[in-house]
Amino acid sequence: MMNGRDPLAKLAQLLAKLPGVGRRSAERMALKLARDQGTLIRDLVAALGDVEANLKACSQCGSITRRNEDPCPLCTDARRDDALLCVVEDPSDIVLIERAGGFRGRYHSLMGKLSPMKGEGVEDLRIEALIKRIGDKGVKEVILALGSDVESDATVSFLRQVLASKKVVISRLAFGIPAGSEIAYSDPVTLARALEGRTRL
Amino acid sequence: MMNGRDPLAKLAQLLAKLPGVGRRSAERMALKLARDQGTLIRDLVAALGDVEANLKACSQCGSITRRNEDPCPLCTDARRDDALLCVVEDPSDIVLIERAGGFRGRYHSLMGKLSPMKGEGVEDLRIEALIKRIGDKGVKEVILALGSDVESDATVSFLRQVLASKKVVISRLAFGIPAGSEIAYSDPVTLARALEGRTRL
Repeated sequence: MMNGRDPLAKLAQLLAKLPGVGRRSAERMALKLARDQGTLIRDLVAALGDVEANLKACSQCGSITRRNEDPCPLCTDARRDDALLCVVEDPSDIVLIERAGGFRGRYHSLMGKLSPMKGEGVEDLRIEALIKRIGDKGVKEVILALGSDVESDATVSFLRQVLASKKVVISRLAFGIPAGSEIAYSDPVTLARALEGRTRL
Repeated sequence: MMNGRDPLAKLAQLLAKLPGVGRRSAERMALKLARDQGTLIRDLVAALGDVEANLKACSQCGSITRRNEDPCPLCTDARRDDALLCVVEDPSDIVLIERAGGFRGRYHSLMGKLSPMKGEGVEDLRIEALIKRIGDKGVKEVILALGSDVESDATVSFLRQVLASKKVVISRLAFGIPAGSEIAYSDPVTLARALEGRTRL
């Protein structure tokens, strides 16, 4: 059982800290690990050690890079455009945007968003570093690639104020109907935003 | 990026082996671990080692127990009923049934179900051990507490044949409308089964 079996409860508690993992799935994961024993646990321990030993967050954009490649290839690639700076919440967003293709500027991960509920305030975000980067390099446009939830909205408002005095264009991702989706499955807010942002053909 | 960053890809690949974790969520989890570095990784490594060092599958029922408590408390508890044997797919099912309460018999985890797609056959399940337990102890009823998916159905059919010659009642969990759910949200198969299994008031 979960209670009384401390090592299992402890492992589940740690797994639940990972993104998208709830209490229940963390328990299932911990039980699977305890059940299989040996190989999977040892492989995981080795892989975790390997990540810790060899990777780090890029000191410039915050994306994950090898320890001996800081700044990371995205920051040093001379073919990328310094004038475009894409601001994201998390390094994993950089992976998604790169996979989508089409963006050839630089990135800046805030490492979070304003979230009073989770106790994440302005001081937890990499905003000083963002301002410094805008001042240093020839950044002409800052693209706020944040989501459309309340916390992202709050973060966007805050950044707009902070960056108001800078001579840069500030833009935000388009909102609308997701690709491959039917109108019938869109919620009213999405539809309203898609209407508001309609484009001429 | 994921490709070229071997330690990250390797970690994600291992995390994806855990139940309920897809490729995409495994990537997000790996990035979170790489991003946070330090504490979380070290705590996880310690917790995994602790689980490996202190827990094992009970040699009798297969549930997770401390190494110095085999057979586990569920198997040795004298207040539980030896006549009722509840057969489950996985130790995590035992946790769920215990949490639901009301069952005071013994358990037997098969450690899987028949799944040709995943290459899990009869030899991978703890069926020999099940037959032995039924012969040894005074088991009167074997409750097959398996799900209602195709693989569970196949496993139930197989176990019915295997246990046919034994002098035990074989039963299966009831199928029907889940608690708290409206008819409107039930799929046709669930509804048909609920009708078929209707109970007199």
